[in-house]
Amino acid sequence: MTYAHSLDDPELRRLYEDAGFCGRVGWGRAPAVLVIDMANAWTDRGEQLGSDAEATLTAVVDVLGAAREQGLPIVFTTMAYDAALMSAGPVVTAKTPHSRLMLQGSDRIRLRPELGRRDDEPLVEKPRASAFFGTNVLSMLVGQGVDTVIVVGVSTSGCVRSTCESGFNHNLRVIVPREAVSDRSPSAHAAALMDIDARFGDVTRLEDVLAHLRTMR
Amino acid sequence: MTYAHSLDDPELRRLYEDAGFCGRVGWGRAPAVLVIDMANAWTDRGEQLGSDAEATLTAVVDVLGAAREQGLPIVFTTMAYDAALMSAGPVVTAKTPHSRLMLQGSDRIRLRPELGRRDDEPLVEKPRASAFFGTNVLSMLVGQGVDTVIVVGVSTSGCVRSTCESGFNHNLRVIVPREAVSDRSPSAHAAALMDIDARFGDVTRLEDVLAHLRTMR
Amino acid sequence: MTYAHSLDDPELRRLYEDAGFCGRVGWGRAPAVLVIDMANAWTDRGEQLGSDAEATLTAVVDVLGAAREQGLPIVFTTMAYDAALMSAGPVVTAKTPHSRLMLQGSDRIRLRPELGRRDDEPLVEKPRASAFFGTNVLSMLVGQGVDTVIVVGVSTSGCVRSTCESGFNHNLRVIVPREAVSDRSPSAHAAALMDIDARFGDVTRLEDVLAHLRTMR
Amino acid sequence: MTYAHSLDDPELRRLYEDAGFCGRVGWGRAPAVLVIDMANAWTDRGEQLGSDAEATLTAVVDVLGAAREQGLPIVFTTMAYDAALMSAGPVVTAKTPHSRLMLQGSDRIRLRPELGRRDDEPLVEKPRASAFFGTNVLSMLVGQGVDTVIVVGVSTSGCVRSTCESGFNHNLRVIVPREAVSDRSPSAHAAALMDIDARFGDVTRLEDVLAHLRTMR
Repeated sequence: MTYAHSLDDPELRRLYEDAGFCGRVGWGRAPAVLVIDMANAWTDRGEQLGSDAEATLTAVVDVLGAAREQGLPIVFTTMAYDAALMSAGPVVTAKTPHSRLMLQGSDRIRLRPELGRRDDEPLVEKPRASAFFGTNVLSMLVGQGVDTVIVVGVSTSGCVRSTCESGFNHNLRVIVPREAVSDRSPSAHAAALMDIDARFGDVTRLEDVLAHLRTMR
Repeated sequence: MTYAHSLDDPELRRLYEDAGFCGRVGWGRAPAVLVIDMANAWTDRGEQLGSDAEATLTAVVDVLGAAREQGLPIVFTTMAYDAALMSAGPVVTAKTPHSRLMLQGSDRIRLRPELGRRDDEPLVEKPRASAFFGTNVLSMLVGQGVDTVIVVGVSTSGCVRSTCESGFNHNLRVIVPREAVSDRSPSAHAAALMDIDARFGDVTRLEDVLAHLRTMR
Repeated sequence: MTYAHSLDDPELRRLYEDAGFCGRVGWGRAPAVLVIDMANAWTDRGEQLGSDAEATLTAVVDVLGAAREQGLPIVFTTMAYDAALMSAGPVVTAKTPHSRLMLQGSDRIRLRPELGRRDDEPLVEKPRASAFFGTNVLSMLVGQGVDTVIVVGVSTSGCVRSTCESGFNHNLRVIVPREAVSDRSPSAHAAALMDIDARFGDVTRLEDVLAHLRTMR
Repeated sequence: MTYAHSLDDPELRRLYEDAGFCGRVGWGRAPAVLVIDMANAWTDRGEQLGSDAEATLTAVVDVLGAAREQGLPIVFTTMAYDAALMSAGPVVTAKTPHSRLMLQGSDRIRLRPELGRRDDEPLVEKPRASAFFGTNVLSMLVGQGVDTVIVVGVSTSGCVRSTCESGFNHNLRVIVPREAVSDRSPSAHAAALMDIDARFGDVTRLEDVLAHLRTMR
């Protein structure tokens, strides 16, 4: 199926290019990987927010393998609220009732073990979609001298898109390997990839990302 | 024409509700109005980013009239960079080349006179899509005791959407009167309204917003 | 002993008042309590950062009692870094080597049990001095409709002062009950109280804070 | 005169070093200069906030000369509020009544001409003490690949200190050439230099900063 708002519609893309969008940011010298919400709440199909993310998981593991070989900084995120939901707050719980389930310490927010998170790869419990909002992620990246973030995980139209926007806002080069992000809604996935590529970062093929990482230094 | 990713698709909406999105945030006690980028660069069809925003302008003026009668805080935004584009930065100018045109003091970034901005309604020169990023808008709103933001202006899929997300992130109730926002791309407009209503704020009819404002106090 | 830079020096105070500092912010309608770093690393005299904070602890417990009677929001902080110290970062560990000891899950960063933290009183692991930096505290307070923060804990010249500045920056009224904050350095304590009262919030007597809380509603 | 809380008190310094403060951050690869509030409101002795800053001005001009020779990014700040003081807000105007005078477009907030600001050196109108609060300065610095900020200007205990703290918070190396900062209050100046050197950045001699800049590349 094709979608009216999609990266793969050449006419739409031309419209955006004419309006001064869709430039290329390219790679900087010092990339890091942000792995967004690869936890049970999103990857278990029995969960309210869950979808089939197995192919995404495989692609993420590939990116992690290449990044670890290069010794790149890697940061994982999940979402987690305190028992009283104060870190969510009344507006967040009203608009997105699934927030009520994302409790600190619960199995639901635990990362998928296939990711093999290491001790020197921080896990950040973020309170909103963007990995940068209400967290210390930006300072971590500045401290590591990072100028490029490879964003992978779920969901394309939610936490991935918001994280890309935040990275762009801070003048970090954002790279999204297309096969390493996914969404429960195919139409939202298509629209978000278009938006990300037009406004925030370069949506590219997984193999191009892996090839670039392998040729670093 | 209908769009695959649209607020008006009842099946899509049901999918989102089932996943714990699309709750209602409703009105708080103390609303403010954020008028996003109603300046020549966006509303003049001869401009690179321009589109026909005359109907939007009329709706925005209606909202301003009702808000001024109630003495609500009103903040206007436009985008503006220094001559060296340092406040844009290399990533922003690479991804969105139209940024190079948004220079401080230029006619392009001047608000439309029909808005009738008053001296006690601040004009904020924001550097990114969200009215909250790299500006003092949040502190202004906290200082005024605001708990609700009515977001109007252009473009739905860009600065309006990002401003809604930031408001939501800070636990402000976000209200978007549908007729008072627009976008150069109809498919992007449809997808963004769906996203805003699902995740960040309540997309409602202009007449309902006006009616609510008129009954305050 | 008296200090050259102290709140209790009437001449210094006059100099500041003449320069347009030292106004009163007063109480708003909706206070919350921020309890800063009342954990073993700061209150155990055997610790590198520790000092005798028993009198401070008693005063903090008094404030908590009055606040709980009124059902006010209460947020506790401590400092905690990931094992690789990425959330500290190279600059932070270089300038303040004690940061290396503040590891997530360690006994050192555990709150003092006398505080009796309840499940609906969030504990925030902050990465820097201010309770607001790199955390979601501001959004929590906005979500609760808070307009006033009572700041208590340690150390006056470090995390307390920085938290007061952040609250002020966001247009929250900051109240510091003098007996409920302390510092390992008496000269730093004196200078910080002067600074806070001149620039960020009202330094007041504990009994006045307790009296105000008891008369609410 | 000596002050009880001063950088030049070796015993106080030892106490701080023992508590894990006062490490050296040193120089990174890519410095920028932040020139804080060298405008009439602070440097004209007839102004409410003014003090004699002529020696400071000379030192700042020296730093600018060396930085311009190396082509380093330079950002200037001043403070400026909208006519309705919404960007100040009720708490800020209550605590620091001098804020009411800092109006956009007034002569009072204009930079000293001796600084010779160039078109490619942005001037940021900041709303609070820190150059980073409510502004886009951090994103500018990330976009320029900056890892070190040389902070100069006035006042040591106010805007300089706060800017140093923000830089440190974001893992930027902060360098303060001692002769290039000053304060209307000598006791506040002494206490702030001690605090900055203990917690946020390296307070060093002007000649050492100039020598370092001249040997770059």
